[in-house]
Amino acid sequence: MDQWNRRGNFGSSVGGDVNPDLRAERRTASFNVEKLTAILDGGADNTSTRRTVEAVIRGDPVFSRENQYFQSQNERYEAAVRKAVHLKEKMNQMGWTENGPEHQYCYRALAGDIAFNVHRVFKSSILALGTDEQITEWIPLADKHYIIGTYAQTELGHGTFLRGLETTATFDISTQEFILNTPKISAMKWWPGDLGRSATHAVVFAQLYIKGKCYGLHPFILQIRSLRDHSPAPGVTVGDIGPKMNFEHIDNGYLMLQNVTVPRENMLSRFSQVLPDGTYMKQGSDKINYLTMIMSRVGMLSSEVIPILLQACTIAIRYSVVRRQSKLNPRDPEAKILDYQTQQQKLLPLLATAYALHFMVAYMNKFYNKGYTEIKQGNFDSLPELHALTSGQKAFATDCCTAGVEVCLRACGGHGYSALSALPFLYTKVMASCIYEGENTVLFLQTARFLVKCLAAVRSGQPIPPSVAYLSSVDPGKCWAMTKMDFLKPDIYAEAYQHRAARLLRNAAAKLQALVQSGTAEYEAWNKCTVQLLQAAKAHSHYIVVKNFIETVEELRNEAEIQKIVKHLCDLYALHGIFSNMGDFLHDGYTSGDQMDMVTASYLDLLAVIRNDAVPLVDAFDFSDESLNSALGSYDGHVYQRLYKWAQKFPANQQVSQAYENYLKPLFQSALSKL
Amino acid sequence: MDQWNRRGNFGSSVGGDVNPDLRAERRTASFNVEKLTAILDGGADNTSTRRTVEAVIRGDPVFSRENQYFQSQNERYEAAVRKAVHLKEKMNQMGWTENGPEHQYCYRALAGDIAFNVHRVFKSSILALGTDEQITEWIPLADKHYIIGTYAQTELGHGTFLRGLETTATFDISTQEFILNTPKISAMKWWPGDLGRSATHAVVFAQLYIKGKCYGLHPFILQIRSLRDHSPAPGVTVGDIGPKMNFEHIDNGYLMLQNVTVPRENMLSRFSQVLPDGTYMKQGSDKINYLTMIMSRVGMLSSEVIPILLQACTIAIRYSVVRRQSKLNPRDPEAKILDYQTQQQKLLPLLATAYALHFMVAYMNKFYNKGYTEIKQGNFDSLPELHALTSGQKAFATDCCTAGVEVCLRACGGHGYSALSALPFLYTKVMASCIYEGENTVLFLQTARFLVKCLAAVRSGQPIPPSVAYLSSVDPGKCWAMTKMDFLKPDIYAEAYQHRAARLLRNAAAKLQALVQSGTAEYEAWNKCTVQLLQAAKAHSHYIVVKNFIETVEELRNEAEIQKIVKHLCDLYALHGIFSNMGDFLHDGYTSGDQMDMVTASYLDLLAVIRNDAVPLVDAFDFSDESLNSALGSYDGHVYQRLYKWAQKFPANQQVSQAYENYLKPLFQSALSKL
Repeated sequence: MDQWNRRGNFGSSVGGDVNPDLRAERRTASFNVEKLTAILDGGADNTSTRRTVEAVIRGDPVFSRENQYFQSQNERYEAAVRKAVHLKEKMNQMGWTENGPEHQYCYRALAGDIAFNVHRVFKSSILALGTDEQITEWIPLADKHYIIGTYAQTELGHGTFLRGLETTATFDISTQEFILNTPKISAMKWWPGDLGRSATHAVVFAQLYIKGKCYGLHPFILQIRSLRDHSPAPGVTVGDIGPKMNFEHIDNGYLMLQNVTVPRENMLSRFSQVLPDGTYMKQGSDKINYLTMIMSRVGMLSSEVIPILLQACTIAIRYSVVRRQSKLNPRDPEAKILDYQTQQQKLLPLLATAYALHFMVAYMNKFYNKGYTEIKQGNFDSLPELHALTSGQKAFATDCCTAGVEVCLRACGGHGYSALSALPFLYTKVMASCIYEGENTVLFLQTARFLVKCLAAVRSGQPIPPSVAYLSSVDPGKCWAMTKMDFLKPDIYAEAYQHRAARLLRNAAAKLQALVQSGTAEYEAWNKCTVQLLQAAKAHSHYIVVKNFIETVEELRNEAEIQKIVKHLCDLYALHGIFSNMGDFLHDGYTSGDQMDMVTASYLDLLAVIRNDAVPLVDAFDFSDESLNSALGSYDGHVYQRLYKWAQKFPANQQVSQAYENYLKPLFQSALSKL
Repeated sequence: MDQWNRRGNFGSSVGGDVNPDLRAERRTASFNVEKLTAILDGGADNTSTRRTVEAVIRGDPVFSRENQYFQSQNERYEAAVRKAVHLKEKMNQMGWTENGPEHQYCYRALAGDIAFNVHRVFKSSILALGTDEQITEWIPLADKHYIIGTYAQTELGHGTFLRGLETTATFDISTQEFILNTPKISAMKWWPGDLGRSATHAVVFAQLYIKGKCYGLHPFILQIRSLRDHSPAPGVTVGDIGPKMNFEHIDNGYLMLQNVTVPRENMLSRFSQVLPDGTYMKQGSDKINYLTMIMSRVGMLSSEVIPILLQACTIAIRYSVVRRQSKLNPRDPEAKILDYQTQQQKLLPLLATAYALHFMVAYMNKFYNKGYTEIKQGNFDSLPELHALTSGQKAFATDCCTAGVEVCLRACGGHGYSALSALPFLYTKVMASCIYEGENTVLFLQTARFLVKCLAAVRSGQPIPPSVAYLSSVDPGKCWAMTKMDFLKPDIYAEAYQHRAARLLRNAAAKLQALVQSGTAEYEAWNKCTVQLLQAAKAHSHYIVVKNFIETVEELRNEAEIQKIVKHLCDLYALHGIFSNMGDFLHDGYTSGDQMDMVTASYLDLLAVIRNDAVPLVDAFDFSDESLNSALGSYDGHVYQRLYKWAQKFPANQQVSQAYENYLKPLFQSALSKL
């Protein structure tokens, strides 16, 4: 493959050869980049499909992101709607389906910068919660974009605690209708995407009341805007919640309901039903609903979150070999900033993290698919583990990616702070992922609850899921590494991570038990242990990532070159984690101070090793220039030329500012008259 | 004082009483809030001046920030210019001077949201670097806004490494002019504020060439735009560098020079001069220039950086007692989120950090003023210490504040992510402070270099400055705390911080020495130790903050109530630092695992103590609602009402979107025709 073809419009418009410093980095790659790309893609066929999709998107001016950084919020929204409508046509034209691989590659190529993402959630909630009749009624309309739907769950006053939602749906037997209401301001629906300006319909979650009795939260489909003139339906107040830190292209909205009625048939009734006489009936198990939540967490990590870290690493590492600043050797020219140990310390552990999390999500996808098959067959055994794993990993990965993208941005200095670097966009986007789909602290504590149960199971001799098997294994109590080379052995560091996770969990559980035994109410005891339970859940999630990385390295045994470099990344990831959390490993004497010095030495050695392959390792992520949309991160490395070229396109540079006419001109004219 | 008067326009327009949950928090304050405010302000007189200024700013509609979150980049710039021009008139009218306390309170009240900040740097650089004649010529023009200046130092290719700047100024004896040039794209001036659209003049730094010989970097005043029509001067290419992560109101710019000539008199010549015949003369010591840099670092911390953390804490803590989510005790109503230990862990150490850093900056101001007086008298002794202190504290404080504001934002969940919370604005603003006025890694390494020198001085029996006296004190090698109460003794934790800083420095220095002795070139050895030198510099800076906090508590001995709560904050700050960096304290056995458990226990106990005064402790910062400009953080706590009210002002809610007309209407109309 000719790598030149992978450069984007911006790249070619800047023209010229690849920056020589960047070219030199590629010449010395220790492995075949194309081969690693195929491994990351899960097969060369996927790579080829992806590149085809990227070429189609790149070739269509409607999808261009060229002016994105200069657009107003409103322009961004309008462009996103236009792209969503256009993409549907394009996909029909190309014969791509929404469930096929092409759709997800489109999303990647568009950097998620498209409307109607919650419209998809609207559809999947009907598919999951609706009866066959309801699916037949609504899905074709939604599929054709005859209606645009949103998913209205979160309220002003409630996000995390779903049982606390306050919207009501009261069944009126006389009219066979539900009457929906927003009883107070905190009950107003708040945040749903596609709601603020686009949606015509919504799945609304409300507390169901029949004859004065509350039956809890249920989903209702209702029309919120006219299909004729887009005006709000009777009793509906709807609008946009205003600007956010990012997601300017999305019209997150609010929704207030005053006696809005829908027919009885509009309650989504796969799992519970209200009969005409007001009888409430539950049917089947809604356990399977957990799967939807699990799936969307795995989905967000693989399509939104992890790629952002990969992109940020690509940008920062490419920039760090083009940027030269200050002298290392006083007799040499200024050094590439990636040759400074402190810059390596910032970026290379992140590069290792990017690989670690990418492999982790690949594993979660496999685990999810296996669990899905079992559950469809009525075997729910893997559900608790799957739930705990995805909760913990969602929190762990979004935390790591958010912290990581910030490091990348700051590692690029002032130019990283320019919107044109793309890094501010990536940071403000990924940070949201710590909050949506479950707030991270809440999720870690769910994992902690699972771990505490597993520990109790171990103690009472019950079986435990494989991912926590280490809780029942015999722990030697001391790390047996003798030299810094020993710390490059996966057995050594895996055991250290196990020991740390198990110790933190045992300590937190012991404190919990002691408090309860001394008469503290259970809820209060739990609250008093949450700081420590959180540590335990993080340490467990961290261990899982290390373990999976080690297993991934083992699976690469037929690709010697690639296995070698990926093993280095795995070592770096593991040792950086120990280096950065020394206290956890030193606390009970499992490792000694001398061993920590060995860890530090090995960790610093690895920085220099990975340094040599840093650019090929980000090239392997194979992001097109268009999807990066970064003046600092393009394949050809023409950083300064691109910054200048892009800045010139800034609309303020094409006109005399009103500020001059109104405020500066009068000042200067009075100056001229007096000088 | 009636606290109601302190509520802003937004507050009063929402109306009603203070939220009862918030009111309850204030009723139980353990100290007099007004008294603490006066202490934080450095005296009740300052508080009263500040409030007067705030009232003036609040009363003037030009200064309103009400629509800030809805403005485009261009509107923000225009408003900032308008405010700057208007503020000048206002100050004249009020009889306030630029060097008086009122000016800095104006800046605080306006949240820095004003143009011509670099114009002030332009002026101070002329005052510092110009001859008396140059000062007489230029300063009155700049003072009257007859000209607007910028300070053009940073280039596309160079920020940190000033010696690498590439702009040239060649002296032409025949014309008695300097010819300024941008020899290549990387030499283009890039980033200066007020340059992109406003400035008429610039102080430009360029490499001075006389008869082919380079004399290094020198400052030149040049006119860049016409006073008649604002068009670029001949040979000047100038424009705006485009959007950034924040600072939308500032027109950061680029500047390219092609044979731009200025008369010989335009080189700022206090410290070096070019005579008509091309003779280059140095005069006086330019050591005093360090003071300018030191002053601007202290200034940015006290007027930009630390207040942002104080504001973020105010917003997040007030919100956390209004927001109720989930049940703690199943029999109670939903709990205030600040009652969850994990939320306390997020916010209360930050509150302690806010106090710690506020007191640290007060100390730095004192130290600076003392040093300034000495240096004016020709005594430069304190300069190295002052420089190392401010470098380290700038890096340390901006790191802490950036991390802290992110925590505040995320601690407010989804609503924190809304622009209306003000937290995205505060975060993206404070993050820049890690990069400007010296990149943090570079600054920490400057402090490290100072520390390595001090260590060598100790070993050779030379005197060392007071802030590093601990390097020569006898270290017991073991922490002698026996109970968790012992860890509330400042002597105990101060010594632990000293031990940590000294150990990290000694280890890094030993490695450095060993490398050099084994034949590694000095520059390479330094680079290989920078990760560890960085740790040492951070640990030293951290110790300095703890030490200063302890001393501040001691000085409060006449205010028992206040001293008590501030002592708790000091303890929390110190113990949280140990808890979060356990490895550093455990590494050589200075503290044991058991002692760390005591630290943890005391730390968690303190969270519950500070929790009770959390709201009064942020009230004491005394930010007006206008300066916070946050729907979540207002004094009255009407969070949901304000979010809704402000969202309605969003322009998109006042018009039908073009996206509907262009893309959605056609879809829905085709749907209607087919349904």
